[in-house]
Amino acid sequence: MSKVAVFGGGSWGTAFATVLADGGNDVSIWARRPELVAQINRGRNEDYLPDHELPQSISATTDPAEAVDGAEVVVLSVPSQSLRDNLGAWGDVLSQGVVVSLMKGVELGTTKRMSEVISEVGGVPTERIAVVSGPNLAREIVQRQPAATVVACPDQGAADLVAAACATSYFRPYTSTDLVGAEVGGAVKNVIALAVGMAEGMGLGDNTKSSIITRGLAEMTRLGVALGADARTFAGLAGVGDLIATCMSPLSRNHSFGVGLGRGMSVAEVQEHTRQTAEGVKSCSSILDLARAHGVDVPIIEQVSACVHEGTSVPDVVHALLSRARKPETD
Amino acid sequence: MSKVAVFGGGSWGTAFATVLADGGNDVSIWARRPELVAQINRGRNEDYLPDHELPQSISATTDPAEAVDGAEVVVLSVPSQSLRDNLGAWGDVLSQGVVVSLMKGVELGTTKRMSEVISEVGGVPTERIAVVSGPNLAREIVQRQPAATVVACPDQGAADLVAAACATSYFRPYTSTDLVGAEVGGAVKNVIALAVGMAEGMGLGDNTKSSIITRGLAEMTRLGVALGADARTFAGLAGVGDLIATCMSPLSRNHSFGVGLGRGMSVAEVQEHTRQTAEGVKSCSSILDLARAHGVDVPIIEQVSACVHEGTSVPDVVHALLSRARKPETD
Repeated sequence: MSKVAVFGGGSWGTAFATVLADGGNDVSIWARRPELVAQINRGRNEDYLPDHELPQSISATTDPAEAVDGAEVVVLSVPSQSLRDNLGAWGDVLSQGVVVSLMKGVELGTTKRMSEVISEVGGVPTERIAVVSGPNLAREIVQRQPAATVVACPDQGAADLVAAACATSYFRPYTSTDLVGAEVGGAVKNVIALAVGMAEGMGLGDNTKSSIITRGLAEMTRLGVALGADARTFAGLAGVGDLIATCMSPLSRNHSFGVGLGRGMSVAEVQEHTRQTAEGVKSCSSILDLARAHGVDVPIIEQVSACVHEGTSVPDVVHALLSRARKPETD
Repeated sequence: MSKVAVFGGGSWGTAFATVLADGGNDVSIWARRPELVAQINRGRNEDYLPDHELPQSISATTDPAEAVDGAEVVVLSVPSQSLRDNLGAWGDVLSQGVVVSLMKGVELGTTKRMSEVISEVGGVPTERIAVVSGPNLAREIVQRQPAATVVACPDQGAADLVAAACATSYFRPYTSTDLVGAEVGGAVKNVIALAVGMAEGMGLGDNTKSSIITRGLAEMTRLGVALGADARTFAGLAGVGDLIATCMSPLSRNHSFGVGLGRGMSVAEVQEHTRQTAEGVKSCSSILDLARAHGVDVPIIEQVSACVHEGTSVPDVVHALLSRARKPETD
């Protein structure tokens, strides 16, 4: 039994900790709030996964050094926009082993992907950074429903190590060396899910939603390829697979957030109602900045950002997404 | 106003006739049964779309020559396995204009695609055959919900003609020259939807369903490319777009058929319950034959065919789909 540290006690961090525990590891979760740490140590994360009984081999601590002590794999699962500050506060926790990012955002201001922030602030070479991404809705994972995922790391050996740590009877990791592709897929899908949710909230059906997902996949692929990703990644689990789950499932926060907007609520009203901000709302403008810096056409991301940050109405957004000139599809 | 003939008064034929009528065409539907013809002439297709009032410019007839008289575009929308016999019975209805196939199957025995059957029996050159395929659930189309589709024909001018005929404020056709890709996408998606439905019927969630769709997209793409299609077609509306709609929507017959199987009903029981056979049930073995003839690995289609034709149990099928070795994703 080896030890894994998980920084972040949110929904997906806790679900992935469960996978790791089921995979035979001792898991130490770091969380900031003592109440949450106490909950986890009593066997339940009441705040994020209240119905899920945690495996015995999961414990929690507020002490970063204690969490990381003896860990071969260090998993990071904090809100994207707080990663830089957290890395500063944790101290020297990334000096050894493989660092796994579960985070699906792009940093505001810098337009850096999470692995770039880890590399810059933590001094970790890219060969020691892996990304886990796929159609992995946390609530289904903790029910031990069958799921597959991608573990992406430029170093195949490191990817294999992480894949071995999280392989269970119900959770099936595939390895990839396309770190950039997995990160771009994970970040962009949240923004597309907002657009799909908006259409659903307006009463539109599966034809419309499938069309938006298809266009979203094209945007994701164009942006990824411009950033150096392998186009094939987007045809796989970390691309279209995760995109479908996030865009279609009522369990997806970004999808639900979009549905609220589509029903006529404001961003502030949905935030108040759901008591959290969806990742796509936070990341859409930095992803748009990134696309613009690379000259990539991303009309869906543009419209979502206009809606969230400039007050463009949802009907105008959806109308803009659906009205484009008749032309060859692959132009 | 130009005239379009639609052969077949089923759900999708009638919905597409509605689109054509809304696009400014006079539409003559041919149907075999006088009762159905009478219904349509009274303004409603009670058998297939009972809630939908037909536009005034749609009429119906049992006479193929009357239907086709003066038509520039002839649309074929009969059950795939009956196309050859129907073409024989209709007589000389394909001698002019563009022939549009709405059919999504592969012929049993011959493993021919529908355009090949049209070409062979009707003597129509491929340049005059177009395929319309995309995320186009009939019930949403007749509600005039926004949808996009692909009109594929090797001849761009013919594709443009068909696209112009079916363009409306809510129905947006994109053109393509990849006839083979559009046909393979349309046929394979029905089989994948059966597998996804089975998983859903067994109580599995969106992670599992998204994973099966992702693998199904890979199968569809491999088979299409082996048959000469352009891989990019499968990343578009006639590929992944239609696949998502068909696999995820409760309005999809193939999906619903799979759900019935997943809940423990036999093929015969689901057929009796739904009073029809889903296209994927009919086509899966011919698609499997086609894949085998071209040496293409199609594990999902194989499992669905084993379930439908050899009595392999649904849990065994779903288990086989979910249990594959840990390995690089793109192997």
